[in-house]
Amino acid sequence: MIKHALSVSREADFAAWYQTVITEADMAEESGVRGCMVIRPWGYGIWERMQRLLDDRIKATGHENCYFPLFIPLSYFEKEAEHVDGFAKEMAVVTHHRLISDGKGGLIPDPSAKLEEPLVVRPTSETVIGTAFARWVQSWRDLPVLINQWANVVRWEMRTRMFLRTAEFLWQEGHTAHASEAEAREETLRMLEVYREFAEDCVALPVIAGEKPENERFPGAVATYSIEAMMQDGKALQAGTSHFLGTNFSKAQNITFQNAEGQVELAHTTSWGVSTRMIGGLIMVHGDDDGLRVPPRVAPWQVVIVPMLRDQPEDAAIVDYCKALRAELGALTALGEPVRALLDLKAVKAATKRWGWVKKGAPIVIEVGGRDVAGGNVSVIRRDRLYREDGKLDSAVVAKGDFVAGAAAMLAEIQQALYADAKARLDANIVRDVTDFAGVEAFFAEGVKNPGFLEVQWSKPTGAALDKVVERLKALKLTLRNVPADAAPVDGVCVFTGDAAVERVIVGRSY
Amino acid sequence: MIKHALSVSREADFAAWYQTVITEADMAEESGVRGCMVIRPWGYGIWERMQRLLDDRIKATGHENCYFPLFIPLSYFEKEAEHVDGFAKEMAVVTHHRLISDGKGGLIPDPSAKLEEPLVVRPTSETVIGTAFARWVQSWRDLPVLINQWANVVRWEMRTRMFLRTAEFLWQEGHTAHASEAEAREETLRMLEVYREFAEDCVALPVIAGEKPENERFPGAVATYSIEAMMQDGKALQAGTSHFLGTNFSKAQNITFQNAEGQVELAHTTSWGVSTRMIGGLIMVHGDDDGLRVPPRVAPWQVVIVPMLRDQPEDAAIVDYCKALRAELGALTALGEPVRALLDLKAVKAATKRWGWVKKGAPIVIEVGGRDVAGGNVSVIRRDRLYREDGKLDSAVVAKGDFVAGAAAMLAEIQQALYADAKARLDANIVRDVTDFAGVEAFFAEGVKNPGFLEVQWSKPTGAALDKVVERLKALKLTLRNVPADAAPVDGVCVFTGDAAVERVIVGRSY
Repeated sequence: MIKHALSVSREADFAAWYQTVITEADMAEESGVRGCMVIRPWGYGIWERMQRLLDDRIKATGHENCYFPLFIPLSYFEKEAEHVDGFAKEMAVVTHHRLISDGKGGLIPDPSAKLEEPLVVRPTSETVIGTAFARWVQSWRDLPVLINQWANVVRWEMRTRMFLRTAEFLWQEGHTAHASEAEAREETLRMLEVYREFAEDCVALPVIAGEKPENERFPGAVATYSIEAMMQDGKALQAGTSHFLGTNFSKAQNITFQNAEGQVELAHTTSWGVSTRMIGGLIMVHGDDDGLRVPPRVAPWQVVIVPMLRDQPEDAAIVDYCKALRAELGALTALGEPVRALLDLKAVKAATKRWGWVKKGAPIVIEVGGRDVAGGNVSVIRRDRLYREDGKLDSAVVAKGDFVAGAAAMLAEIQQALYADAKARLDANIVRDVTDFAGVEAFFAEGVKNPGFLEVQWSKPTGAALDKVVERLKALKLTLRNVPADAAPVDGVCVFTGDAAVERVIVGRSY
Repeated sequence: MIKHALSVSREADFAAWYQTVITEADMAEESGVRGCMVIRPWGYGIWERMQRLLDDRIKATGHENCYFPLFIPLSYFEKEAEHVDGFAKEMAVVTHHRLISDGKGGLIPDPSAKLEEPLVVRPTSETVIGTAFARWVQSWRDLPVLINQWANVVRWEMRTRMFLRTAEFLWQEGHTAHASEAEAREETLRMLEVYREFAEDCVALPVIAGEKPENERFPGAVATYSIEAMMQDGKALQAGTSHFLGTNFSKAQNITFQNAEGQVELAHTTSWGVSTRMIGGLIMVHGDDDGLRVPPRVAPWQVVIVPMLRDQPEDAAIVDYCKALRAELGALTALGEPVRALLDLKAVKAATKRWGWVKKGAPIVIEVGGRDVAGGNVSVIRRDRLYREDGKLDSAVVAKGDFVAGAAAMLAEIQQALYADAKARLDANIVRDVTDFAGVEAFFAEGVKNPGFLEVQWSKPTGAALDKVVERLKALKLTLRNVPADAAPVDGVCVFTGDAAVERVIVGRSY
């Protein structure tokens, strides 16, 4: 039996395993500040890679980056009733702008420095950005406005979980304004597709793109779309959302323009976001019992070179050999970018380094000892296939030249293999042939391990009828995820109401 | 006489001119939130370029990026007395985590959701990062810790000015911990040099690097170094700081380690930062009466192509010609990076576009009309030399092939020319031969326009004696800027005390 690097397996306790990966891969830690984490270099490095790749795509689709204030006056929120209802319960509120001594060696907010109007720490920026749009947009010539910002936001969550749900998190939020509904709807779907392609091609996360049911809409939206990924415990993770806001925010914030005929119209707006939450998805989709496996495109380091030093005279030759190897690798292009190769010279034992990088999930770990140097070889560990069939660590001795010649292809292969694994798991765990609610209950019955998703046909009830469905699902700890854009046509009745089905919807447990 | 693009000149009203450049170049605007600005795409694009170039340098010197919480519990601040004294007066304080209706259609902080311990919105992160360092550092093997974060910070300033002093601003803050004082001091100076090189080579801002006098130190620091730039009105702008914190924060936060001999020691720490303030410096150093001039290395777009369209059939050929030109330019490398060329196809008149890009300060603006296409030419406007000697706009018709062949060199030349201009101005406006306080008073006498800097010899008084000097300078609205690292040896007496001089210090008005 393989002795894995982590102390807990996915099988034994998925939640504990998740936390262990984060700790052992040095991704993040508790900060001591309630609900806020410290994102450590390996975790932040993955976020930086995601930012770079997603930002390129956001710019390629014509958006420009801006920066809007962290603080939002209460009065901005009060204008859009649904929106404020959705966020009021979890907002951090700034009420003072100075501290004074409490006379006992401590500090207190200075009562004489109370703000006239309290400020909310942004939970999302529709209200403050909409106010800017109202200033910017006068004529149809000013449209579309296509902007994005990379920012921190705060939602005071009661139960937090690293990356998945933290009081403060990092994200990008795109905000656009358009002259017509059709154009705004097109934008909403364009960004959903950008997210799908980014998740699948860069993060190797296969996702289901589709529209959220009415009850799962963003507060204030006319339509919300999402990409949903399946974790290894069968649960869904919403990994990105794109909202068509109609004229709801335009009305509240007075984003109007004169059309070509001289008439004043309301603009149609959209917003869309992806956050550090996706890193949680990456862990739960690609991690294994030895730690994280990072897809090469988002790996801060794609190839890590570990010299096997022994405080011997030959160490210098090993280091030189490794430096030359790093230079050769750095000159290569893989997956459209220069290869990111690190030579790990820290004063730590080679075996500790090896397992450290395995737990962090570097795609390729190269070990170089005296014998490798003498033979012109390197020892290659591929993180996506760590063990041989006999359960031994698969470390292959390869001629250095051959490794370098094949390194770019190997990285592309690892990227593809991680995606293919996850895609096969997603496909194998979506069941589509349940036709009544008893089937739903059986599929998600207690004791069924990692059930996955059900894709069922439904009549798309609204209002009170939908509430009833949502209640029945809630009793089973289930939620409606989304209506896949590429689902098969319907050919039956609604599993919830028995009425004629009009579309297919994904049902599952979720994070 | 030249009719310039801006409504106000530097000569007439420098402060109004500064604000006009920001508005006319679409860099930033008031947000409606007290003290906070909206950074618009052109301003934010410059910041993104600065981030990319500085981040490369921060990483090349061995630092890794992390992310720490926005919120800092009050108790963290209370530990370092000097530090909290320096910031307590200007901190935004979060006291509640929920809003409720006020019963009159508005919202108020929910009295039942008051935080047990108020949270400060970070004004700087020494305290929260030091707390993490205390967890991370156990042994000498864990040192040095070299990290950086890109973040927003808040200091509740009473009088704000876009980019220069805003309640919220963006920056990077580096934080490091070392086993020895010597190593920490070396790090402090290394990052000062990184800032100097970045400011001069990337932003084309000539600066004076040196140590701040005691009274200008960062709260809690043992030594503070800065780079100081000279604005066109002769005032100084501190454009970056690097602090040696000694063991002050280690003591407060218990950052200790076991040395190789098994004894427990305090770590020595440093911190250093550059913010969006530097954009204010860029404006006031490189701007002219036609708007901003952006050095090519930090210009979001280096070459902007403006097709001169007239709603005529020949428009299509012009656009095709421009597209081909953009592709040719995009394939070039200038100043070590691919050329950033934009084809401006917005539905705006060509003349408006031309002047829009001049005001934004794009380094090269290319205009292409039907005649240019017929002749295989382009019309080239260089932002660094906008007018000919006769006062006419200098738009040169050049063969397209010649322009493309020389474009990379032209961008390098513009980068160099902007630096050389600013450097000549700095050198011409530092006076070094004043030997007594009467000379100081005369140099900065009322009515002297843009006096610049004085570099004077002084005895480096401390404590009360220094306070006296600072008071005398304050009466003249002057401050001690820094002690230039490369100043000439001293050979006289202190202009303030008459005692023997020990070093030279820069005196000036400042932002």
